[in-house]
Amino acid sequence: MEPLYVQLADSIARQIEEGVYPPGSRIPSVRRLREQHEVSVTTAVEACRLLESRGLVRSRPRSGFFVERSRPEVLEPAVPAHSTRARRLDAALSLRLNLGIGNPQRPTLGAAVQGTELMAITTVNRLLSQAMRLQPTVCHSYDAPPGSPELRRAVAQHGLDAGYSVSPDDVVITSGAKEAVYLSIRAVTRPGDTVAIESPAYYALLEVLASLDRKVIEVPSHPRRGIDLDVLGKVVSRQRVAAVAIVSNFSNPSGSCMTDAHKKALVDLLDAHDVPLVEDDVYGDLAFDGSRPKAVKAFDTRGTVLYCGSFSKTVSPGMRIGWAVPGRYQYEFEHLKLVVNQASPTAPQLALAALVEGGGFDRHLRRVRRLYAEQMERMIDAVDGAFPDGTRHTDPRGGHVLWVQVPGLDSLALYERAAAEGIHIAPGPLFSASGGFRDHLRLNTGFPWTDHIASQVETLGRLVAETLDGPSS
Amino acid sequence: MEPLYVQLADSIARQIEEGVYPPGSRIPSVRRLREQHEVSVTTAVEACRLLESRGLVRSRPRSGFFVERSRPEVLEPAVPAHSTRARRLDAALSLRLNLGIGNPQRPTLGAAVQGTELMAITTVNRLLSQAMRLQPTVCHSYDAPPGSPELRRAVAQHGLDAGYSVSPDDVVITSGAKEAVYLSIRAVTRPGDTVAIESPAYYALLEVLASLDRKVIEVPSHPRRGIDLDVLGKVVSRQRVAAVAIVSNFSNPSGSCMTDAHKKALVDLLDAHDVPLVEDDVYGDLAFDGSRPKAVKAFDTRGTVLYCGSFSKTVSPGMRIGWAVPGRYQYEFEHLKLVVNQASPTAPQLALAALVEGGGFDRHLRRVRRLYAEQMERMIDAVDGAFPDGTRHTDPRGGHVLWVQVPGLDSLALYERAAAEGIHIAPGPLFSASGGFRDHLRLNTGFPWTDHIASQVETLGRLVAETLDGPSS
Repeated sequence: MEPLYVQLADSIARQIEEGVYPPGSRIPSVRRLREQHEVSVTTAVEACRLLESRGLVRSRPRSGFFVERSRPEVLEPAVPAHSTRARRLDAALSLRLNLGIGNPQRPTLGAAVQGTELMAITTVNRLLSQAMRLQPTVCHSYDAPPGSPELRRAVAQHGLDAGYSVSPDDVVITSGAKEAVYLSIRAVTRPGDTVAIESPAYYALLEVLASLDRKVIEVPSHPRRGIDLDVLGKVVSRQRVAAVAIVSNFSNPSGSCMTDAHKKALVDLLDAHDVPLVEDDVYGDLAFDGSRPKAVKAFDTRGTVLYCGSFSKTVSPGMRIGWAVPGRYQYEFEHLKLVVNQASPTAPQLALAALVEGGGFDRHLRRVRRLYAEQMERMIDAVDGAFPDGTRHTDPRGGHVLWVQVPGLDSLALYERAAAEGIHIAPGPLFSASGGFRDHLRLNTGFPWTDHIASQVETLGRLVAETLDGPSS
Repeated sequence: MEPLYVQLADSIARQIEEGVYPPGSRIPSVRRLREQHEVSVTTAVEACRLLESRGLVRSRPRSGFFVERSRPEVLEPAVPAHSTRARRLDAALSLRLNLGIGNPQRPTLGAAVQGTELMAITTVNRLLSQAMRLQPTVCHSYDAPPGSPELRRAVAQHGLDAGYSVSPDDVVITSGAKEAVYLSIRAVTRPGDTVAIESPAYYALLEVLASLDRKVIEVPSHPRRGIDLDVLGKVVSRQRVAAVAIVSNFSNPSGSCMTDAHKKALVDLLDAHDVPLVEDDVYGDLAFDGSRPKAVKAFDTRGTVLYCGSFSKTVSPGMRIGWAVPGRYQYEFEHLKLVVNQASPTAPQLALAALVEGGGFDRHLRRVRRLYAEQMERMIDAVDGAFPDGTRHTDPRGGHVLWVQVPGLDSLALYERAAAEGIHIAPGPLFSASGGFRDHLRLNTGFPWTDHIASQVETLGRLVAETLDGPSS
């Protein structure tokens, strides 16, 4: 039985879907909902917030909640029908592709990286110099896991925005979320173990699993709702799965953002089968409308979730600072961090702590969310204009990757043709352990829109058409 | 057949040992040696340099080579007689011990850490702020292995001092030597494989091997000469050893520094059996007399050696910057670095590159080598004064750890008693996979000498005596 507020939200969601409340219209006020449904104010408010976190409504200060205008005629990429069988991985593809990460001055459509305009460089430089000047001994001496108390406190504080309430003691600082995911996988699985992942999946996760000799099962993931819980339920019921690993909010590449109800159900499912979840939530802070979706961790009551976060997508990738909240696996996680590289550098931790605690982080997020929203809109418009009829793509509400499907396309052939013209893309099979998504590609929207990017997308549209017509299609 | 210069050096070494050239006297000049032995100038010079690197003579500018005065009556710790059988590891001991790393403001005798006086903080802070200001895009964007071209060039340049000549392309930047060793072990071995290590061994290496489920064989190591090549030769002949791992110069904890001849013989042995060497050389820059010993890597002609270096022992541990020269395993090594945490932070790399290339690193080394020499001398004097008769200890020519043996001591009991008085030590069994070195302890000499340290050593001497007399002895 769902909690009352979820039931209420579901009922309003149905009415929105049925056109009772058309796009742009106001849904009933909290007072009205309270009267209509005989619920408490809290329940009514929570239902509205849930609808907002699902991207169905948006609040306007002092006016109420309004139904989101959905983009007309978005054809979403298709969803795989079944899970795959457990298989060993070969990470060779990601190794031989160039996603254009080599020159940070140059925007790329390939790697999921962002322009410096989207980072908080000036402030962070100042805070870092300040930390080194004021606390030279702390900054330059050996540290040990779990990391700087200041940043752990700031992360715990920031976690409240993602709906999880933990103590600074529960946080372990890492060198990026990538390291947090690597250590999490090592903490909860052994060589030969099977890990269930969403499909499509972030290719760096595939690399970690391949490198550690873990097998994977790919579970279909919907471009809005995320991993299919029915399929996952069958997978974890019929075989031993050592862990599940997902990107919970604005996933890479699918852009999916699980609803709160979905997140709670995932935790319940995994708790029932005693399977830990490695949650990568590096994009959650980049919700276009400013309503930060909850982490799955927010629904974790038993320490099942190893949460992985990062400042790379928001403040600075080059500082390499992320964190984990590893739940009941914290001891093992900290030990692994110690073994691998002792600790992360101290000065950047102090700078980021000061950024969060001084409010600069939230101000920065408010600024860049709007920029990311705009960049995504421009990219979608450009793809709609340049790509052939029948092209499908996602409509993400956060993050900076767009997942595109062109039925019949050979995206690896497209990759080669595009590379020859100096354009980098991430072809679909990169995101699959089984060569899937051949007709998909991922486009990065992490840079402010320019004529150069526009012309790259236009060229890409032409190359897509040529590839479809060409001998390799 | 040894090369001519080695034969010549050996013959002079014998004469020194026999008292032909007593401590403090001058050995024959290069011209004299040339005439006496009918060798070239180069051979004579190389022989003298070899003797110097063995610590037998010391050059004085424009005066020639003088026989080193050895400390009177140094009783060295005993050397284990045999190698152990391959065994799985349990790293539990290091996890439950507190070596006093928690408070960087407070000197500790436990962890091998150094005081800020021994770091290059002011200069590095300035260079780091400068790098972030001048190259914000590079500092804050995503990087990928192998790391910053500037620092790789600086490391290649610095490598010449350690006798290895490599291109910047051969260098991979890591988050400390610890990560370099971790990635090296992963690059050349698989779970269940056996790694041969020196005994005593640096405990963090034991932790890495335990964590990765590798077995170890402990090979006796001499407190001056390092790992016993005769025993190692037997070990690699009679079973498959996937790798050998050592600290080549001023090893931790034994202080040993292999001679050049020994290093070359090690490479030859491993090449003959096709076994890679993981060489940890974090202390080589801290030679008390300024004569930087060569790395084993200097004798590597086939890419057998995965060399691991660090700026942690010289400039700043808190910046977490080290490097590897992984030889023919570079591809695999770089891939693992990418998988684990993408890259190391960029700004500290640029700062260190500027430090090395501007000459500040060498100036800094010249300054701290004298300080480390003095600190070691004070510690040895204090131990000689405070510890009971029969105490043995090393007489390292570099680094900052002293390895002490008190026959009959239970160093774990001593650890507990010392901890109760606020004194941290590293007990002997920490450095063994088989519970060995029960009557040994390691003392850190990384801090400028103070009355407080002097009184700690005095207290320790008293506790040693009590422990010997007490119920646990």
